[in-house]
Amino acid sequence: MVSEPRGVGRERAVRECDVVVLGGGPAGENAAAYAVAGSDRTATIVEPELVGGECSYWACIPSKVLLHPAAVRGAASALPGVTGLVGDRPLDAAAVLARRDSFIGRPDGSLMPDDSGQVRWARGAGIDVVRGAGRLVGQRTVEVVPAVGDGGATVIEARHAVVLATGSEAALPPTPGLAEARPWTSRDVTAMTEVPGSVAIIGGGVVACEAATWLSALGSEVTMIVRGGALLGGAEPFAGALVADALRQGGPGRKPVRILFGTQAYEAERDAVPAHGPGVPGGAPVTLRVEPSGHGDAGGSAGTVSADEVVVAAGRRPAVRGLGLEAVGLDPRHPPRTDAHMAVPGVAGLYAVGDVTGRAPLTHMGKYQARVCGDVIAARAEGRPVEASRFHADPGHTAVPQVVFTDPQAAWTGLTEARARAAGIDAHSVSVDLGAIAGAALQREGYTGRAQLVVDRARGVLVGATFAGPEVAELLHAATIAVVGEVPLDRLWHAVPAFPTVSEAWLRLLEAAREAGLLAAG
Amino acid sequence: MVSEPRGVGRERAVRECDVVVLGGGPAGENAAAYAVAGSDRTATIVEPELVGGECSYWACIPSKVLLHPAAVRGAASALPGVTGLVGDRPLDAAAVLARRDSFIGRPDGSLMPDDSGQVRWARGAGIDVVRGAGRLVGQRTVEVVPAVGDGGATVIEARHAVVLATGSEAALPPTPGLAEARPWTSRDVTAMTEVPGSVAIIGGGVVACEAATWLSALGSEVTMIVRGGALLGGAEPFAGALVADALRQGGPGRKPVRILFGTQAYEAERDAVPAHGPGVPGGAPVTLRVEPSGHGDAGGSAGTVSADEVVVAAGRRPAVRGLGLEAVGLDPRHPPRTDAHMAVPGVAGLYAVGDVTGRAPLTHMGKYQARVCGDVIAARAEGRPVEASRFHADPGHTAVPQVVFTDPQAAWTGLTEARARAAGIDAHSVSVDLGAIAGAALQREGYTGRAQLVVDRARGVLVGATFAGPEVAELLHAATIAVVGEVPLDRLWHAVPAFPTVSEAWLRLLEAAREAGLLAAG
Repeated sequence: MVSEPRGVGRERAVRECDVVVLGGGPAGENAAAYAVAGSDRTATIVEPELVGGECSYWACIPSKVLLHPAAVRGAASALPGVTGLVGDRPLDAAAVLARRDSFIGRPDGSLMPDDSGQVRWARGAGIDVVRGAGRLVGQRTVEVVPAVGDGGATVIEARHAVVLATGSEAALPPTPGLAEARPWTSRDVTAMTEVPGSVAIIGGGVVACEAATWLSALGSEVTMIVRGGALLGGAEPFAGALVADALRQGGPGRKPVRILFGTQAYEAERDAVPAHGPGVPGGAPVTLRVEPSGHGDAGGSAGTVSADEVVVAAGRRPAVRGLGLEAVGLDPRHPPRTDAHMAVPGVAGLYAVGDVTGRAPLTHMGKYQARVCGDVIAARAEGRPVEASRFHADPGHTAVPQVVFTDPQAAWTGLTEARARAAGIDAHSVSVDLGAIAGAALQREGYTGRAQLVVDRARGVLVGATFAGPEVAELLHAATIAVVGEVPLDRLWHAVPAFPTVSEAWLRLLEAAREAGLLAAG
Repeated sequence: MVSEPRGVGRERAVRECDVVVLGGGPAGENAAAYAVAGSDRTATIVEPELVGGECSYWACIPSKVLLHPAAVRGAASALPGVTGLVGDRPLDAAAVLARRDSFIGRPDGSLMPDDSGQVRWARGAGIDVVRGAGRLVGQRTVEVVPAVGDGGATVIEARHAVVLATGSEAALPPTPGLAEARPWTSRDVTAMTEVPGSVAIIGGGVVACEAATWLSALGSEVTMIVRGGALLGGAEPFAGALVADALRQGGPGRKPVRILFGTQAYEAERDAVPAHGPGVPGGAPVTLRVEPSGHGDAGGSAGTVSADEVVVAAGRRPAVRGLGLEAVGLDPRHPPRTDAHMAVPGVAGLYAVGDVTGRAPLTHMGKYQARVCGDVIAARAEGRPVEASRFHADPGHTAVPQVVFTDPQAAWTGLTEARARAAGIDAHSVSVDLGAIAGAALQREGYTGRAQLVVDRARGVLVGATFAGPEVAELLHAATIAVVGEVPLDRLWHAVPAFPTVSEAWLRLLEAAREAGLLAAG
């Protein structure tokens, strides 16, 4: 294949640059920045919405701004000496929402965040930004239809590489009446400008659990409709159970959450949809008719759930629609396959990073892939070899970290015990009660949590770890380093955690491993 | 040498057991527990005060109970949505002190903590507890003088080992009038039953910084008299500077601390000492006359400092006094030398662990040494080899972690850049502004902090790390694992931190290392 001829018998303007990146989220930004860093190469990011992507405006960042006050309030409420200061008073929702707006750069009175800071960063890094929808029209060739205005399409030819980084989009279940009821997606619930009196959440994964946490902390009556028998299906069961217990229990200034396990909505009905679009309350309540799903052991519920808004948190899928994969001979319905360099095999100069690859759909993993990809593009452009470790994204993604910023939090990396066994590993797990660790007990009255390591007995190394409990997020990276670094348990025995930190859980975990005969014998 | 003959011409009772441990702090407890675990061996802990030691009643545990409310209040004050809930109101000091009492097991109205829980634990683990002062009277032989009552001395002969674990004692500078003014030691300031209106602290190390934090958060006017030009002398300078800035600044519900750098007290005067002993206010104020110390570049202050109490936090020294080291041919003035098994070379069956060794005087390092020591004693008693890694305490203690629980916190492990260079390492450091990490910026308005890695360029591994900022304590263990595990930087590049955690500092640090050419070239 060759690029299409330039400007022959067509009305499209044709431009050239070194690297074209479709999608300006964190993965796209990183791929572009790494591909041009320290060179005079030029990159163009093609983005139909905002540079910074879902993560910056509608996902990770605003959700964590909404969640952190709940965690701090939880800590304050459970600590004598501070408890009385906060009392039973709820969070100041207006202040929380205003801080969210400041983090996403949304000016007062506007519904749309402002990405001018990100655009400035891109231009400063030598990256051009084109607003529009991009699609492949040939090898190393992209057509861009402007997002606004009536200008014609532009063709951009990439001398070195095209990187697909279009991310993912929320999946909507085909429940009758649901689309018509204008449910909130994860975008709407992080972008909300008022806190609904009541919310029904369809889903039990990370997005659902986090949204239930901030909504209940900001005063909503929340009902979760969960198909399976547990929250956080991909994690060790104890993590989901701990989060479920805390949501159900509520706390000072935080409403208890109702969770219907083993339940699905089969019909939705709403008399009047909001006038001002999703994210802004104002319509009639939604009624969901629910029934047992037949999944999980929970029995399930039947009846109706009424709420001011419905949040659909039923997963996301790679954003491959309209990407033009067929123009380079790929199946347009599926995420493109990628090799360890994040290149798409069989299509010269084509790469893909982030959610669109169908690999672990997490901002940090997309950024990781993008660093590798950008480095590979730069090296190949300069005729350098790409043999070194940093030019290869761990193909199995064996230590993907995930943190759920609920209160308590759940955090895991690598394999669960079940998944390790399924992978043929002689896996053995050890776990400890975090509440028995002095450093944890100090933090809150009644600290409840658990930590677990999954050990590959044959190799004597960790293959996974899970932490569940208040404020465990920062415990995780130690485990990721141990898994990725393949540090033998015998060596971890000498990595002393400071007393009295929560990290002392590592000592108890290794003592449990020692008792289980997982350390080298004397 | 042989043991003294049993009960010949003496009034002392003679007992036998397998292992005698002098000192019932965490190191002694662990050595005893590991030495007898899973066997029918017997151990005896000889302790003149309380089982659980300094750490449980007068140091780590009570200090962290006193400190954590200040950190949580700091987090709450700096987070819109929660700020207004806590307002300017100070911590509830009575509730904080009551929680401290519950953690140290001090019953209402008593000044002495209760160690019956620890004694129960010991007996359950097959460890006998004898109250008294123990000293070596020969090889594997200890004499115990009872702490209470008028019973005679007992001699205990150890079939396998004697472990010295007597810890350390506070050092008092020879300042004229100071001893007579009955200054508070670290014990008194953690055990205090009322918060003094004003306190002068002599010292600028960990104990001094932590005490200044909780005293000022509980309402005291604090003046620190610091000989050198910085706080936290052993740490990277930026860590001490950050802590000093925060102490001086104070905050909502927290009084600003006055710090006199380059200053020493040369005389103390107190008209009336408290009637009820240290730890209980009630005497006349203390006047300290101060002068420039000539240390540090700070110039120093001259004049007087008046305060209701003086806290001396001028270091600790190994508790070798009265240990009877001379009875086994050792110099009684110095801590006994120890090998990698924590055995004292040249004296059969003698071991030492914890502060008394003069190695890193930290509870977690004492416990680490004790685990190694107890394992070695058990293996030798059973005729097993002691070749495996877990029978050797890292002789250089190359990754000693230390956390300072101020607000902001400081935490470090391994070598500072200066110390690495002094050790002949081709050390290169990289650092990042933690406030620029999304996960940190989310936590508090105006989050200020810094993280630094020290890299051994020749080996391509970390040799040290320092984190300074609010709530950085749990970031440290990842660095300790990386240092101890000697995980190459090229491999750390693939240990992805979760977004948006504070641990993402690792990504920025490794990017800085990459820019500095510390990763393998392409």
